[in-house]
This record gives sequence, C-alpha cells and structure tokens, in this order.
Amino acid sequence: MDITLIYGKNAVIEALEQNEREFNKILISDSARADVKIEQIKKLAKQRGIIFQFVTKEKLNSIEPEGKHQGVIGLVSPIKYTKLEDFIEKYQNERTSVVILDGVEDSHNVGAIIRSCVCAGIKGIILPSRRGVLINSTVEKTSAGAINHISVIKTNSLVNAVQKLKENDYWVIASDHHAEQNHYEIDYTDMNFALIMGAEHAGISKSLLKLSDFRVKIPMLTNFNSLNVSNATAIILFEYVSQSCKKIRGNKNG
Amino acid sequence: MDITLIYGKNAVIEALEQNEREFNKILISDSARADVKIEQIKKLAKQRGIIFQFVTKEKLNSIEPEGKHQGVIGLVSPIKYTKLEDFIEKYQNERTSVVILDGVEDSHNVGAIIRSCVCAGIKGIILPSRRGVLINSTVEKTSAGAINHISVIKTNSLVNAVQKLKENDYWVIASDHHAEQNHYEIDYTDMNFALIMGAEHAGISKSLLKLSDFRVKIPMLTNFNSLNVSNATAIILFEYVSQSCKKIRGNKNG
Repeated sequence: MDITLIYGKNAVIEALEQNEREFNKILISDSARADVKIEQIKKLAKQRGIIFQFVTKEKLNSIEPEGKHQGVIGLVSPIKYTKLEDFIEKYQNERTSVVILDGVEDSHNVGAIIRSCVCAGIKGIILPSRRGVLINSTVEKTSAGAINHISVIKTNSLVNAVQKLKENDYWVIASDHHAEQNHYEIDYTDMNFALIMGAEHAGISKSLLKLSDFRVKIPMLTNFNSLNVSNATAIILFEYVSQSCKKIRGNKNG
Repeated sequence: MDITLIYGKNAVIEALEQNEREFNKILISDSARADVKIEQIKKLAKQRGIIFQFVTKEKLNSIEPEGKHQGVIGLVSPIKYTKLEDFIEKYQNERTSVVILDGVEDSHNVGAIIRSCVCAGIKGIILPSRRGVLINSTVEKTSAGAINHISVIKTNSLVNAVQKLKENDYWVIASDHHAEQNHYEIDYTDMNFALIMGAEHAGISKSLLKLSDFRVKIPMLTNFNSLNVSNATAIILFEYVSQSCKKIRGNKNG
C-alpha cells in the first residue's frame, strides 16, 4: 500500500481512535518516557492488532528529519479524499458549511486551518489538486489529529466545485481585504456557507471572486494589514461560532 | 556587535523601513530574480548606507538551512527589548493593551501572534525570560515584519509584571478553556487590557490565573477542543477589534 507518516503523540492517538486509517506499523522511540500517551498508543494498537516496534531515536530522526515526532511515528495509508458529490449528498438534510483554500501554500497554515475548522463544526475542506498544498505529514501533525474529523475534498477545478455548491444551496463567502462589508456584518447562522480563503500573497482568484455571494473583510485597527491566513480563517469562523452560540442562548431564553 | 538574522523579503524591507535595527550587511542571492522587492531592498540599503553583497544561493542556505530566506538575509543587531516601566510610562495617557504569553513554545506561533497583535493595534507583547520562546529568526520571519511595530518586553517574573500592570490601571484577562464566560461577553473597548495566553499544553499558570480580573473561554461547536494558540489569540483580539469598529461606527451615526 501507499504509505504516509503521521507523527506526534496526539496525531497518532487521534488516528487510532478514529479507526479510518490503515496502519502498517507504529514506531516508538526506545528512549521515549513511558508517559500516559505512549501507554495509550500501545493499548490502542494492541486492541486493533497493529504492530508496534521500539527503535532508536536516531532511526525516528532519519524518517522525520525535523525532529517533531515526539518519539512516535505511525506508518499509515494516505488519507482518503472525499468526492464533492458524496459530501453534498451526505449532508443534504442538515446545515453544513465548508472552507475552500484557494492556493494556500504553507503546510503549517493548512494544518492549523483544519484544526480551527473542526473546532468550529465545519464539515469539509476543499483543496485544489494542482495549486497549493495537499495533505502531507506536516499538515497532519499541525492539525493535531483534526484531519480525521473532517471530509477533505480535492478538486481539479475550484470554479466547478463552487458552482456545484451554489446549485446545492450553499452561499459563497469570499474573504477579500478590498471588500466593503465587514466579516461580522453577515449572519452566518441561517445558511450553508462555503468560505473561500485565498493564498497568502495572491489572494483569491478573480473567477472565484465573481462567483461569490458575499465579500467580507476583516477590519484592522492599524495600517499594518497582514494577517496570517490561518488566523484570518479562525477569526471569520469564530464570528460564525459566536453568532451560533448567541442564537442558541437566545432561543433558550426566549 | 551581537548579530541576529532576519530573512525573507518582507521582513528585511520592514526592518529597513522602520530604521530601528542596526544592519551589519545584507546578503542577496545572485540567482534571485530582480523583482520589485529586491529592488526596493537595494534602494533602501543605498539610502541608509548599508552594504549589500551578492552571494550564491548555497551560501544563503548554509546560513539559513530551512531555505525560507527567499534570497535575502539581513545580518542585524538583535531587537531591543523594552522595559515594562518605560512601556507603561510611554502610553500612560492613551488606551493601551498588551498580550502576555505564558510559556508559548513554538516560534511560528509567537511570530503569528505578534502579527495579529499589530493588526489589532496592540502596543506591547510580554514574554517570560526563562520559559517559552524569546525573539529568534523564525519569530522575526513569521511575524512578517510586525516585530518592528510593537514593544517587546521580557521579564523574569510574569507575576510581578501582571501586578505592575494592575497597579497602572490595566485589566487582566486570562484565556482559560475552563472559564464560564465566553470571550465575546466582555466589553474590551472601555479599558486597558492585558490578555494572557497560555502554553499550548499546560495552559496558564495558577499564580497568573489568580491575578486575573476576567477569565474567558472560546466556545466550540464540537467536542474537538484544541485551537492552536495563535488562532485562539487572533479570535479574542479580533472580537476586541470588531467591538471597537462597531463603537466607532455607532458614535459616527449617533
């Protein structure tokens, strides 16, 4: 089978618990402290009949040279991408929202965005096949296991994907710092939305901007207008979360 | 003089424009495309009488092995840390807020947090001398030059720093996922605040929690409760920004 790496204690635990990834084996550093998480990994691996091996730290470093493995590396099947059609069908009877990354190039950012998406209850993330980052080990690690809680959709054409979403009752919101409307001036709670975030430098491509129903900006209190894309995504998604929480509380009190 | 590196086109341009850092020299890759930003760096360096040298890409890679230099490395004096007393005095006649990082360990996160701080009009960031990250080249790069727009304060005792802030009319807000109050239920616009963000795993130390005037949490829409600390900081700071923008607009209309 094709093999990819997941490393870091939390990432490996998440993948074991979700039980959607096929494990080849798990490598554990023989100098790793036998802490709660390592014990949990061993226990979960035994339950699922997955081989784990103790190897030297040098061996782990040779597999993952950045040294961010925390003493644990899982050799697993690559994540399964979801087809957009299947995603739309699966969630056709409930409020569902997705985030679309138009050419985001930094794996750390993609991982952090996936983490925020899952915290905010976003069900899917759409990535272009040919521009920007697809899911790699750094994305998996930075997502802290969140990657196993979201549908990842890759597409040859973001334009086609956005059109299909629009046909299926999704409203398209583009984050664009030239926009007139502030991000907090939209009511996110009454719609399925598809939030498009652009590449760090280039922003969102014109063809996608044209398809959007709303364009929103995040206002700044200074002239230094340069939020990191993962922070910008978190700010908009958690405006949606705040609105949802206020509404739930309002309904309870009403 | 002590030397530190700043690399990446934007980071070098910001440092040249701010004119607070002493440059030893600037190294430019001889294979770098002569784009607008490289031209700008050469022009600014000439204006300030700073030497720039063309060297091989391999030379740059040997100085900055992660290969994130984008063809430009500046050898500069380390950033100047500000004393808390001086900071408080400087801003005593205006609304001012600061962010305090209690042991945040990842340089990328610290850099991204500084970037969000500057976008949100935060004037200072306080770091402990002995736990977590101080300013290094990765922080400088990730901050995209924002580091030159904020006072960086390091302290041997965060407890003493927080007490001093409280004596000087700052309200202390701790981000704590055990809190009862949601982050959006506080009015940030009527006070000087000091927002404390904790380490990725350990959270905020108890002694600091005790000193806080407010504890706030960011509510989630799922059980996956694991925001990246830089995203959590951005979410809270931009709740403050949104409140400020709404207030300014309200005053204009009123």
